[in-house]
Amino acid sequence: MARINGNFRKLAAGYLFPEVARRAASFQKEQPNVKLHKLGIGNTTEPLPPSIIEALHAKVDALSHAATYSGYGDEQGSTALREALSGYYRSINVQIQSDEFFISDGAKADAANLQQLFTEDCTVAIQNPAYPVYVDSNVVAGRTGSYNDLIGGYRNLVYLDGREEDGFFPKPPKEKVDLIYLCSPNNPTGAVATFDQLRSFVDYARAHKAVIIYDAAYAEYISDPNLPKTIYQIPGADECAIEINSFSKFAGFTGVRLGWTIVPHRLLAEDSQPDELHKFWFRRQCTFFNGASNIAQAGGLAVLSEGGLAECRAVIAYYMENARIIREGLKRSGLTVFGGDNAPYLWVKTPKRMRSWDFFDLLLRQCHVITTPGSGFGSCGEGYIRISAFGHREAIAEAVASIEHTLAKALEVLHE
Amino acid sequence: MARINGNFRKLAAGYLFPEVARRAASFQKEQPNVKLHKLGIGNTTEPLPPSIIEALHAKVDALSHAATYSGYGDEQGSTALREALSGYYRSINVQIQSDEFFISDGAKADAANLQQLFTEDCTVAIQNPAYPVYVDSNVVAGRTGSYNDLIGGYRNLVYLDGREEDGFFPKPPKEKVDLIYLCSPNNPTGAVATFDQLRSFVDYARAHKAVIIYDAAYAEYISDPNLPKTIYQIPGADECAIEINSFSKFAGFTGVRLGWTIVPHRLLAEDSQPDELHKFWFRRQCTFFNGASNIAQAGGLAVLSEGGLAECRAVIAYYMENARIIREGLKRSGLTVFGGDNAPYLWVKTPKRMRSWDFFDLLLRQCHVITTPGSGFGSCGEGYIRISAFGHREAIAEAVASIEHTLAKALEVLHE
Repeated sequence: MARINGNFRKLAAGYLFPEVARRAASFQKEQPNVKLHKLGIGNTTEPLPPSIIEALHAKVDALSHAATYSGYGDEQGSTALREALSGYYRSINVQIQSDEFFISDGAKADAANLQQLFTEDCTVAIQNPAYPVYVDSNVVAGRTGSYNDLIGGYRNLVYLDGREEDGFFPKPPKEKVDLIYLCSPNNPTGAVATFDQLRSFVDYARAHKAVIIYDAAYAEYISDPNLPKTIYQIPGADECAIEINSFSKFAGFTGVRLGWTIVPHRLLAEDSQPDELHKFWFRRQCTFFNGASNIAQAGGLAVLSEGGLAECRAVIAYYMENARIIREGLKRSGLTVFGGDNAPYLWVKTPKRMRSWDFFDLLLRQCHVITTPGSGFGSCGEGYIRISAFGHREAIAEAVASIEHTLAKALEVLHE
Repeated sequence: MARINGNFRKLAAGYLFPEVARRAASFQKEQPNVKLHKLGIGNTTEPLPPSIIEALHAKVDALSHAATYSGYGDEQGSTALREALSGYYRSINVQIQSDEFFISDGAKADAANLQQLFTEDCTVAIQNPAYPVYVDSNVVAGRTGSYNDLIGGYRNLVYLDGREEDGFFPKPPKEKVDLIYLCSPNNPTGAVATFDQLRSFVDYARAHKAVIIYDAAYAEYISDPNLPKTIYQIPGADECAIEINSFSKFAGFTGVRLGWTIVPHRLLAEDSQPDELHKFWFRRQCTFFNGASNIAQAGGLAVLSEGGLAECRAVIAYYMENARIIREGLKRSGLTVFGGDNAPYLWVKTPKRMRSWDFFDLLLRQCHVITTPGSGFGSCGEGYIRISAFGHREAIAEAVASIEHTLAKALEVLHE
């Protein structure tokens, strides 16, 4: 008699984005003639650049000829792509061997699966607010208690609060934890950890033999040379940190699907033999994964070429110009805005201490702009909304103009 | 202090294919002028057909224009592809709703991950011999004891022996089990379950509220109309069976990566609410997966078109002609051969009661042909080797000729 994994029942029912979509659809039904502007979901919108397209076509052509067709590749990804990634890190003076890279079909799967390397009784610390996958994967794996509405989180999870006074990046925990999820540049806050902040976590992890799972999926959006692009810029991080990254926001591969994870040879847990975590992840990928699409991998290799990098960075600059336009517009509307300078997300304080969902509704119904309520990412997101800089320029400008023209009036009405 | 998942340590060290590669490389080093023929790994070799290539190019082109670019899709796969799959099953009179399909990046990941739906204390039954992923994923999840060299398997697993007298397809277990992995057409034996055999498992599962995880990745190789192509041809299977399938061997997508899994709404476990397993798998995919590559999905849609199906079936016919050539040649060499009529694998009895690895070595060293020792798939594989029909025609013919010319002599020498 098969018994089901009841941990799935613990997952908080309402997932954020479906609820956003439901409210938007409901309003659109009420007012079918209103044009809604989207500043919500973090999905890329700009086409893939020419040299990536060329590489994808070339790989498809290769699959059409017996002499160049290829089937199964290595589960850890092609040697060429892993060597190119090693070179990409070397360009910022970080030495990572090509066999420390594991090519995946995107950061989300790795972010969810890496916990499988550890025992069920490990204590998990999560940034608050955070991308929901870190939490939900650990709920399914049985590392949490039930969801508690009062605290707005799961029992047995350690929430690391990101406060305005710390630039929304948390301090290391006071208690002893075993696994720590960090995301920088952060989704949803757009906050980027400083060298000092990351160093404090690396010091904590080495002192406690904790392991940091570091999500750097937005690293290419960092333009400030004084901010770390990878946790391995902190000495000793290779003993305590796994880094996840992705071509999704780097190169517009949200649909193409390609990412990578670095599990260093030197990584240690409390009870691991030298190199054991690296070997376990290799064995894990050989059992639970069969390699990323060879077409996507050919595209990834083109991304890392000199021409490809320049083209992808031009697209990133385009999104970051969107972010600037949004920030300026929202500031002119009197809003307090964080993030959006080294990340494609802006973290906007709600006016008049409104709750996130209330301000979301006001922006939707009065300004006709769809955003994402910060409280959906954790209790510390309450009182904020997330705005995404992904979108076509004209649509972004229209959305910002709509807020500028209508927000003051809408807030006045609210005040009455 | 992070603690590692020690179940990884239980995994039997020597994975089959690396050991095959090691022995082949070692022999090639001894005899660098010998040309080795490959009848080993189950990897597709023929190029993708024209209408699939055309669809892949068209999707790449779409990604190059702002108006047609798309990013994240639904985690469960595109509606168009799921509807096409529903139609594909309808063509053999099996009704499956489009929302019962979950598009994946291939059967292997689903085969490994589906166990996550169930509690750790579920008892697992596995065909013997079997594809190693079913076993290894349950080892990592903690459902087995340690590996026992004497029994040639893991403690706490129930092995369902596939014997020659039953056509290498097992009978349902005598004891009570909770999860049952079946693969038909089978890798490695090439055996295909009959309607009666599948019915006996469906009856067992319904009686015991067990769940069958049914791997049908080679279903398109079945040409005999009296053999079931899907477990859902057995009435009641939708209450007790999850089916996994793949475009890998169907359409040469081993490198492109695309598969699907069916979790019926009616599926039940001992303690599940109606539709709960279906909902849990949806939630699982939304958390641990971000959808298959949109390029691969466009290719999959082309596979299921009328023209695409005909082209892919022509490639399958090519591999099955390889299988016929191999079978005839091996029979002429005096070997006893099973499978290879509705599956791309042939299951060859070793002569003179040789052990699998001994016959593998003889074929390698005397006949210069690489095969796969049956014992690598489980204790019941001892005394057999697996031969794969994937390969270019000329290479297959050369390999068979090499066996025909050298085997008799090699066996004679052995006898002396």
